[in-house]
Amino acid sequence: MSRALCPGSFDPPTNGHVDVIKRCLSIFDHVVVAIVANPSKSSLFDSQERTAMLEELFKDDLDRLEIHAFSGLLVDFARERNVDVIVKGLRAVSDFEYELQMAQMNESLAGINTLFLPTNPEYGYLSSSLVKEVARMGGSVEGLVPPMVAAALKERYA
Amino acid sequence: MSRALCPGSFDPPTNGHVDVIKRCLSIFDHVVVAIVANPSKSSLFDSQERTAMLEELFKDDLDRLEIHAFSGLLVDFARERNVDVIVKGLRAVSDFEYELQMAQMNESLAGINTLFLPTNPEYGYLSSSLVKEVARMGGSVEGLVPPMVAAALKERYA
Amino acid sequence: MSRALCPGSFDPPTNGHVDVIKRCLSIFDHVVVAIVANPSKSSLFDSQERTAMLEELFKDDLDRLEIHAFSGLLVDFARERNVDVIVKGLRAVSDFEYELQMAQMNESLAGINTLFLPTNPEYGYLSSSLVKEVARMGGSVEGLVPPMVAAALKERYA
Amino acid sequence: MSRALCPGSFDPPTNGHVDVIKRCLSIFDHVVVAIVANPSKSSLFDSQERTAMLEELFKDDLDRLEIHAFSGLLVDFARERNVDVIVKGLRAVSDFEYELQMAQMNESLAGINTLFLPTNPEYGYLSSSLVKEVARMGGSVEGLVPPMVAAALKERYA
Amino acid sequence: MSRALCPGSFDPPTNGHVDVIKRCLSIFDHVVVAIVANPSKSSLFDSQERTAMLEELFKDDLDRLEIHAFSGLLVDFARERNVDVIVKGLRAVSDFEYELQMAQMNESLAGINTLFLPTNPEYGYLSSSLVKEVARMGGSVEGLVPPMVAAALKERYA
Amino acid sequence: MSRALCPGSFDPPTNGHVDVIKRCLSIFDHVVVAIVANPSKSSLFDSQERTAMLEELFKDDLDRLEIHAFSGLLVDFARERNVDVIVKGLRAVSDFEYELQMAQMNESLAGINTLFLPTNPEYGYLSSSLVKEVARMGGSVEGLVPPMVAAALKERYA
Repeated sequence: MSRALCPGSFDPPTNGHVDVIKRCLSIFDHVVVAIVANPSKSSLFDSQERTAMLEELFKDDLDRLEIHAFSGLLVDFARERNVDVIVKGLRAVSDFEYELQMAQMNESLAGINTLFLPTNPEYGYLSSSLVKEVARMGGSVEGLVPPMVAAALKERYA
Repeated sequence: MSRALCPGSFDPPTNGHVDVIKRCLSIFDHVVVAIVANPSKSSLFDSQERTAMLEELFKDDLDRLEIHAFSGLLVDFARERNVDVIVKGLRAVSDFEYELQMAQMNESLAGINTLFLPTNPEYGYLSSSLVKEVARMGGSVEGLVPPMVAAALKERYA
Repeated sequence: MSRALCPGSFDPPTNGHVDVIKRCLSIFDHVVVAIVANPSKSSLFDSQERTAMLEELFKDDLDRLEIHAFSGLLVDFARERNVDVIVKGLRAVSDFEYELQMAQMNESLAGINTLFLPTNPEYGYLSSSLVKEVARMGGSVEGLVPPMVAAALKERYA
Repeated sequence: MSRALCPGSFDPPTNGHVDVIKRCLSIFDHVVVAIVANPSKSSLFDSQERTAMLEELFKDDLDRLEIHAFSGLLVDFARERNVDVIVKGLRAVSDFEYELQMAQMNESLAGINTLFLPTNPEYGYLSSSLVKEVARMGGSVEGLVPPMVAAALKERYA
Repeated sequence: MSRALCPGSFDPPTNGHVDVIKRCLSIFDHVVVAIVANPSKSSLFDSQERTAMLEELFKDDLDRLEIHAFSGLLVDFARERNVDVIVKGLRAVSDFEYELQMAQMNESLAGINTLFLPTNPEYGYLSSSLVKEVARMGGSVEGLVPPMVAAALKERYA
Repeated sequence: MSRALCPGSFDPPTNGHVDVIKRCLSIFDHVVVAIVANPSKSSLFDSQERTAMLEELFKDDLDRLEIHAFSGLLVDFARERNVDVIVKGLRAVSDFEYELQMAQMNESLAGINTLFLPTNPEYGYLSSSLVKEVARMGGSVEGLVPPMVAAALKERYA
């Protein structure tokens, strides 16, 4: 039985994130989503809000999917949750280089492997920060995030 | 008749920017230069100063070139000015990846295409921020920016 | 009036090629498609066949689009056809580097600029050679090439 | 239960290949190694020799690992073997781009996902072709390939 | 006699930095280490602390190695110290692009060349900021930095 | 005293090659140019012709520069000539990745370091193969290669 860990900020979750988690569910037996609660960076939605959004989006998969906010070293969290591998979505070459450095550091710190899952090309341009910028300027984020997230963005920037 | 939009911060305009705009004028019938007035990032020169610099630098082309400061979504500005295409200068592979994401986002938001124009290799290392760093430390920016901009930098950092 | 040149092998044309040419037609007044007839590389379809395919695919645009096979230096052909700019579709970072070298060489040889048009992400994985490999092994190329090209591939590899 | 497919030429297997397959065994329940028998490219070792090498190198894991030579479309082989995902080792950014195009094509042809496993940095420079070049010129390949493969290379180039 | 300049922040020095400086000592007759004292970025260790660390780490090489903190333009410092070339360690492609722009700017400002030395792949994932992040969260930095630096990090984050 | 090795095919030498060798002479005490005589790839000029061209181009530097054709492993040649370091010109990111793999292989085989020297941006698009293609099609290679090489190309393709 293979257990995969999907870490991310998910501030907020986009259609790209949803696609990556869905594909992990089709490959692995069990998926742990780890919401990075970075205290040094201000977030638009707090950890509880992001957890609630993901729980709602994946409410039909919670028998094989667990969602946690965490802080500290990712490798400590990975060991605690007993996962076999970290899985990261990849959009672009520059993502790849940064993620490769993190993967090698995590392998060096704790012997845990990282696998990269290329994003659906349809969502290759999507990032939470771009989505927030569009929403903040009053643009439409339909098709970029789930309807529930679009509503939350609209309310937040009202 | 083809209308192209050249967006940028131009804080301040460099010889690389001047080269890109000149080449756009040789390709397209009409060129709209859009000075991004980003309120969340502090700039060295304000929008009016940057507009005045570009108007002076291209004073002989103003029949086919218009210069505007704008804030908000680029695609809204593009629609308002009725342009056919966005043109961005490209210096390097890492520029390309970021610009590609913006281009795909803009295509998704408003169906507008982006074309990339590689910078003259002679100016491939030039950026406004590098120029400001050199000027701030008292280095010579001759050959990097038009003389008028060099004078403004000297005055600002005096 | 802006005239753009779209060079390529088009052996055979894919949905990615069709998308790039269509977008050029939406940006420029006139588009010249140049089919590179490389004598040193064996092609699956000869220049006449490729010309006929493109003429059929763009039969409704031939008032603003011309299609020619050519051999020799691209810059000589560009001058002969009096184009303002070369436009190349770009799929990936590695494409970009090779194309950038060609663009700088062409600018150095003849003062002609090259603009890059990123491909639709939906077609980012498509190339004529991948399509031929799939068709040769009996896979389905539906959705990758126009139906007319799919039929020609099926016949050729029968 | 997760089944992963590791395709490659393995002509011959290097320490980098061995490392990737071992890490797949630590992540997935079952691993299928697919030796690509490309008829259009001449190989140093034929499919049987490469199969025998890998079977010897992984003789203690054959309850969870199967090794097959195949020709044709990878996605057809993947479906036939009922795998959940393709796993590819990645050494460098340029590998990534080519592999990304193949991954997107395979997803488009058959809905099968590809995960990328970065190689151990210690083996980041290793490739079968570089190993063969060193061996052909009489250099030592110790530390680059398993001893059994080193012996086979020595004999072949004697 | 060749004199090389190795600039960096060294906040703090990692095993990757030590490896690059050692290899410079094996190639060049004399090595000048320049600690960039960037006043606009807050550092964990101040210039004196970083100088003291490097002097301790290279105490046996001080006949051919000098260590200085500096602020201002690197090319001015290079001229003042009469070096023949700047040498920079390179970990990744994205490093390369940024460093290439700096190298071309420095060549343009002062005619001084920059050579790039690829880091040992074993240290390819290492950066001072990643090391600080691990130490701040209580992870072990053994094997990533010299013992003396590990002790200083532990004390600083206690 | 530092001895550098500059390997390459030089088929034929371009202005980019000349620029790299000149800059090596300004950095290192002694420079060894190694002309790779690859028997498996057909060359336009044979090893003697390429040696003669380089000797003529650098006739004023032969007290500090030696030119040799060689075949076999580069590291064996480097040891034989007692060099301290290999120096390679770099034009682009994709060059960098391939060269990085060669550098790591050479370090692994013989403990010899490789330094990378970015080419003058003015020559960033230049390669021997592009030059040969232009010359073969009757284009002008003035400004791309030394006059003596231009004459040899003209004669060869006459």
